[in-house]
Amino acid sequence: MKLVLVRHGESEWNQKNLFTGWTDVDLSEKGHEEAKQAGKLLKEQGYDFDLCYTSYLKRAIHTLNHILDEMDRDWLPVEKSWKLNERHYGALQGLNKAETAEKYGEAQVKIWRRSYDVKPPLLEADDSRNPANQEMYRNEDKDLMPLAESLETTVQRVVPYYEETILPEMKNGKRVLVAAHGNSLRALVMYLDHLSKEEIISVNIPTGVPLVYEFDDQFHVVKHYYLGNQEEIAAKMNAVANQGKKA
Amino acid sequence: MKLVLVRHGESEWNQKNLFTGWTDVDLSEKGHEEAKQAGKLLKEQGYDFDLCYTSYLKRAIHTLNHILDEMDRDWLPVEKSWKLNERHYGALQGLNKAETAEKYGEAQVKIWRRSYDVKPPLLEADDSRNPANQEMYRNEDKDLMPLAESLETTVQRVVPYYEETILPEMKNGKRVLVAAHGNSLRALVMYLDHLSKEEIISVNIPTGVPLVYEFDDQFHVVKHYYLGNQEEIAAKMNAVANQGKKA
Repeated sequence: MKLVLVRHGESEWNQKNLFTGWTDVDLSEKGHEEAKQAGKLLKEQGYDFDLCYTSYLKRAIHTLNHILDEMDRDWLPVEKSWKLNERHYGALQGLNKAETAEKYGEAQVKIWRRSYDVKPPLLEADDSRNPANQEMYRNEDKDLMPLAESLETTVQRVVPYYEETILPEMKNGKRVLVAAHGNSLRALVMYLDHLSKEEIISVNIPTGVPLVYEFDDQFHVVKHYYLGNQEEIAAKMNAVANQGKKA
Repeated sequence: MKLVLVRHGESEWNQKNLFTGWTDVDLSEKGHEEAKQAGKLLKEQGYDFDLCYTSYLKRAIHTLNHILDEMDRDWLPVEKSWKLNERHYGALQGLNKAETAEKYGEAQVKIWRRSYDVKPPLLEADDSRNPANQEMYRNEDKDLMPLAESLETTVQRVVPYYEETILPEMKNGKRVLVAAHGNSLRALVMYLDHLSKEEIISVNIPTGVPLVYEFDDQFHVVKHYYLGNQEEIAAKMNAVANQGKKA
């Protein structure tokens, strides 16, 4: 049994080097292209799926749509959940990463970006960026809507969603594809690979590259690997790691 | 309570004047544009939805994707079902409508296209166009897969789907959008408006134009109307009606 994870392609704000979080920005031209490539690669390598999961955010949904279209699998069922959203970046959302590094120092930005349990500055409750004030979350439990998230609090929503919603379908024999975000996927990778708080810090997931997990009969991870050109993938991971540096 | 129906935008085969049925062709450039326009119109006029339904066919799915994207509602739940597919055109699928008219006569083509209970010529069971042989329907009950459909047999799958799946959600207060096909929507219109077999023959649904049904508290139809420029809509309906004529 395999599970395939894909981080959305480059977004308009990845490109501008802004903290995005739950801001609902679209893919850049390059991001659309990366998503199509991911779909072509999955098709070429003979992958197929029964069920797909994605977040509420359009950069992940559009990535999934491109993949399904390239695979001629538009008709597959898709479940969308905010539990797969990117980490909420609180009051940093919309700020430039390099400028934030100049203002607060690279060390502080690294803490916000890569520490396990430190939340970025919280949103005010009446901020329009508070999900409790947004149409997209109008049917969700307001008490669950974050004002900012650490990777730890992201894990606390992603892992139960995996255990309660995704894993039971895999146990029913469904082949699952998840299109999500850098940090919601890091949360899942941390859980699947039993990584420590220290180990997850240096894990960077490249955009638009299928990440395959293989399981044994007990649904323990046997191994994982990225599909595609391994040198290009290493370069992409590096690019993600360097975003928090000053220009 | 309102229900909004949209027929997919022009497809690559509408454009070529071929019998399409369950052939999974994509939207044409014009079709993509029509779908986006439908989304813009719905947004401008203040429509919003809680739940969307579409078929297994990519021209309907892509139409819905465009509408949701224009409305900034990518995150809405979407249910896909073959029960909302176009009428299956049997052995006519892939043939040119004007050529078929020259070969069999306009009268016969009109019977196949617009009679209520005459099926087009059936597919052979081993034909690759038989849905029972196609990946897309691998999880469906093979006994339900048609070799050709009349409007009557289309009604027999569309109306139960409406009554058992869509209507209960509307009764729960959900605002529903359906993106589907000329004949699956005609089947639904026949049921909603209590049209006779004779009356439905002259009903033509234009591509990419939102068709709004309003209901009373008992979920009986109060009225229906198309959104947008009424002259353009009349011209579009005429174009559909004339497709079966010789060139």
